[in-house]
Amino acid sequence: MRTQLDEAKAGIVTDAMRRAVEGEPVTAEQLRDLIAKGHAVLPKNRHHEFATVRAIGRGLRTKVNANLGASGECADMTVERRKLAAAIRAGADSVMDLSTGGDLEALRAMYLQEAGTMVGTVPIYAVATDMVRRGVPLEKMDPDDLFSGIETQCRQGVDYITVHCGVTRASAKKLEYFQRIMPCVSRGGSILLSWMRRNHKENPLYEDFDTLLDIAHAHDVTLSLGDGFRPGAIADAIDGPQIEELLVLAELAQRARDKGVQVMIEGPGHVPLEHIQSHVHLEKKLCDGAPFYVLGPLPTDIAAGYDHITAAIGGALAGAAGADFLCYVTPAEHLRLPDEDDVYQGVMAARIAAHVADLAKGIPQALAQDRAMSQCRRTLDWEGMVTAALDPELVKRRLHVTEDRQGCTMCGKLCAVKLSVSAMG
Amino acid sequence: MRTQLDEAKAGIVTDAMRRAVEGEPVTAEQLRDLIAKGHAVLPKNRHHEFATVRAIGRGLRTKVNANLGASGECADMTVERRKLAAAIRAGADSVMDLSTGGDLEALRAMYLQEAGTMVGTVPIYAVATDMVRRGVPLEKMDPDDLFSGIETQCRQGVDYITVHCGVTRASAKKLEYFQRIMPCVSRGGSILLSWMRRNHKENPLYEDFDTLLDIAHAHDVTLSLGDGFRPGAIADAIDGPQIEELLVLAELAQRARDKGVQVMIEGPGHVPLEHIQSHVHLEKKLCDGAPFYVLGPLPTDIAAGYDHITAAIGGALAGAAGADFLCYVTPAEHLRLPDEDDVYQGVMAARIAAHVADLAKGIPQALAQDRAMSQCRRTLDWEGMVTAALDPELVKRRLHVTEDRQGCTMCGKLCAVKLSVSAMG
Repeated sequence: MRTQLDEAKAGIVTDAMRRAVEGEPVTAEQLRDLIAKGHAVLPKNRHHEFATVRAIGRGLRTKVNANLGASGECADMTVERRKLAAAIRAGADSVMDLSTGGDLEALRAMYLQEAGTMVGTVPIYAVATDMVRRGVPLEKMDPDDLFSGIETQCRQGVDYITVHCGVTRASAKKLEYFQRIMPCVSRGGSILLSWMRRNHKENPLYEDFDTLLDIAHAHDVTLSLGDGFRPGAIADAIDGPQIEELLVLAELAQRARDKGVQVMIEGPGHVPLEHIQSHVHLEKKLCDGAPFYVLGPLPTDIAAGYDHITAAIGGALAGAAGADFLCYVTPAEHLRLPDEDDVYQGVMAARIAAHVADLAKGIPQALAQDRAMSQCRRTLDWEGMVTAALDPELVKRRLHVTEDRQGCTMCGKLCAVKLSVSAMG
Repeated sequence: MRTQLDEAKAGIVTDAMRRAVEGEPVTAEQLRDLIAKGHAVLPKNRHHEFATVRAIGRGLRTKVNANLGASGECADMTVERRKLAAAIRAGADSVMDLSTGGDLEALRAMYLQEAGTMVGTVPIYAVATDMVRRGVPLEKMDPDDLFSGIETQCRQGVDYITVHCGVTRASAKKLEYFQRIMPCVSRGGSILLSWMRRNHKENPLYEDFDTLLDIAHAHDVTLSLGDGFRPGAIADAIDGPQIEELLVLAELAQRARDKGVQVMIEGPGHVPLEHIQSHVHLEKKLCDGAPFYVLGPLPTDIAAGYDHITAAIGGALAGAAGADFLCYVTPAEHLRLPDEDDVYQGVMAARIAAHVADLAKGIPQALAQDRAMSQCRRTLDWEGMVTAALDPELVKRRLHVTEDRQGCTMCGKLCAVKLSVSAMG
């Protein structure tokens, strides 16, 4: 069975590619060429049918993912369904099921069935959750269980998986010279780091990367090479462990592409503003243009409760510099598991960042949206403004026009637009 | 009577300068030198006493202003008091009273008395509001009324005033070649533009700039040279009218400094992300390092309802590039007059942007704040995280720690920080 990447390399435009270019500034043929070069991915498991097929990468609109899923403390299928609905209503292009509580198989099945978008997971979470439930310490993890856990999820239909293959002996060793406040803030990464340290062994996902490639290829699952050493503090950003891991991921990305497996690279994390652009450029250069999937970035540590805003700042800048896929951050980040409203706010903030980035990337469809809104403002076309808005429902609810329809309650009779259009007309 | 600028030029460190360096990475002597060069301002009317004296400019923390004030549609002293309290509680460094409704004198007196921060105004609003009330068309405005309106407010104690001196015949003429969706979105700018067009006369604030300087000098009022031609749409950004006006403001800033009048330059507005940094650099170069006071910038037109987030993106980037003073934008922007909650959210979003910028500027106090938060995260010191947060009350309300205090409800037993610190320890 051939993957989207195999097909692209063979010069074939698939049905999925045709569907994925809707609303994009590229043709299906151009998308095929981007996929063939590894500059774009089209995450779609061959067992998973869903409505909104999207590609991620260079020359395409910046996409947004919402992390969902139950935790050990909050596991309720109804709540998860509501969170999923909120993410989709807010316009997410992708969701990840990061459940570590509740009935993991059933939750995953629900996400796959009801999302209508690509679904990603971090398979090691299920393996670790199972061990915690059985009271087995995480350092006793059997690598075979990890690979079989991955295979189960790929067989079930997951479109892309995060695998922390770059947490290696070499990248972990960099923690010795480069002192960090927090060595590792990635759940998957920390489980592997802990396992490696206690067992004095190499990361099985790195050592047996070819096994991983075989599983991914069989189901056409896109690998999202996780950044276990993403910085979790401004003071820890852009250091040895992070960059060493990126070098490892660059090599693995090439091996994946050579075997016909689609691959993207995950990025930080907590990064000071002045390093965001250059870090995106570094990823693109080292990884030969592989799609870059960033979490945030968060340019400060102290804005807990507002981290959707912090992430929008970092995401807009990263996207403008070339990042292709933004993982949202919600107002609940660093505080608790997000609820339905957190999810909605998180997706909206990430969509603002993605759209701002798309304007900077010169995506014609994005530029047209802003022009349409501003034309409505010029003519005081209030209904038009509602339609042109990123969140029409919110604008409809909050817009407060004066009785004569000639202004809003901000300026009333001193409306600058009206005054100046009339003066110049 | 000497202004702060006169004193600085004479080598004198004033009491206000000593108070203004609290929490700043400069000494009073260094601040004096920055003020003398025109690279910083210390807005403080000689008739206005208030608790929190701040300076704005190069090498200092990025400051945040909250625009407040009643409108013709919503004018209620109690509501304004609540909005002011929300702005101060959220940590604004400055407020502007932009009232165009209610008892303007009483509102201004209330702001001056109760803010505890510097207070700015746009005096032409009061003049125009008075004309609208008397049913006199705005094009009949008498320049003498404008100057006497300005003098009244300076005498009353206002610390800085926005004056749209750069809306000149020359800059307005640029509207002919550079077609805009919206010619002018500045209230003050559009009133002057309209007056100039109907009367075929030059802007009196430009023509009689020396009169303005005399008034400002007498009361030590800082001039904030308004950007009447700031773009109100992404499509209109960085064009002839905007840059021509900036050139005018650069000359006027020099004239102000020569006369001992403190001056800052106002900036946009709607600006695509990729132009924000270079525009700040342009302002700093043309205006010889004058403090830059930006409104946003907003890197998209379509996010009405979330424009505090849009402005945080633009503000962080502008601040990192050197902008010194961020005018907040609230979630109500483009929709209605902001309420108390809008004000709070707006100030918080702008403070995030200012703080992110301060990290990029290398302000040691800002870097220490992030380090303190991350140290608390490393040790799972939940109370410490509350204290270190930008908004401790919000964090206290939303933080949800597990019963064993060993994690939050996001990761529970799979806390990466705990796992990795223990693995590396």
